[in-house]
Amino acid sequence: MNELIQHPNPVEALKATFRLHASGVGVLTFSGQSGEPVGFTATSVTSLGATPPLVSFNVARGSSSWPSLEKAEFVALHTLGVENLPLANKMAAEHTKRFASDDWSFGRFGLPIFHGVTSVLILKVRQIVEVESNAVVICDVIEGFVGAEQAPLLYHQRSYVTVDKLD
Amino acid sequence: MNELIQHPNPVEALKATFRLHASGVGVLTFSGQSGEPVGFTATSVTSLGATPPLVSFNVARGSSSWPSLEKAEFVALHTLGVENLPLANKMAAEHTKRFASDDWSFGRFGLPIFHGVTSVLILKVRQIVEVESNAVVICDVIEGFVGAEQAPLLYHQRSYVTVDKLD
Repeated sequence: MNELIQHPNPVEALKATFRLHASGVGVLTFSGQSGEPVGFTATSVTSLGATPPLVSFNVARGSSSWPSLEKAEFVALHTLGVENLPLANKMAAEHTKRFASDDWSFGRFGLPIFHGVTSVLILKVRQIVEVESNAVVICDVIEGFVGAEQAPLLYHQRSYVTVDKLD
Repeated sequence: MNELIQHPNPVEALKATFRLHASGVGVLTFSGQSGEPVGFTATSVTSLGATPPLVSFNVARGSSSWPSLEKAEFVALHTLGVENLPLANKMAAEHTKRFASDDWSFGRFGLPIFHGVTSVLILKVRQIVEVESNAVVICDVIEGFVGAEQAPLLYHQRSYVTVDKLD
């Protein structure tokens, strides 16, 4: 049996826990106030039930995307595979360069849609729950598109990884 | 470039997307109304910011655990490694057998704590947001415990897997 060691403070305990806890990688995109493309890489995307189909994700309200997201009616959720590693990196880096190349086009509701991802769900924002300096965004799934199958991209111990079978 | 194929309906699109999207595996435990241990396996646990340290997870309000969770003041979040596969299976199966063996003990606030996991965060429930037949549970991290390092347990394509480096 592993011995559990108490962490000296809850902030560090949270960080240590979520370094150990792997998560899938998504990219969220939406329209800015002038119709310009806005988006970011997220590891907090999760299902919130299938009937009706609902999705939630968490976001920092201090992020560069927040002023646009707060007003967005629709959001595109892209799930990423290992071939989308450059996209995950790009959408987590300097926000002025996120849509500089031609790997995306405008789709339904004027949403920026990246090409070559494993799936895209078109979401309608239902409710935003502000919690301290963060927010939980709750969305209805309007429609979805599925791409060619590839191994999923994950984030773990501050690195991008993929899955492997258990021994 | 992958071609994206539109899915015939949003429910199936959501299911297809989250089969492709891998997620870390956690176990949540709390006290029932008579102090008895209650809990379940969850793949929706995510951080909601570090200052203050917050965590969210999603749950179906039709689940056997909901009546206890709805009234719970405190919750223990366990993150799982590959050695905890039997625990993940047990806590997702028949609820009367989840605490039948001696792999747990009562910890702080009377919370049932499983042994041998990668970490445990003690959470205080802050807010429950009901959405259709589901709920988003938002919690403050009170304290945390970290166990011996092991490869993380993930859920992907309806199977338990672990991580692998990218090529």
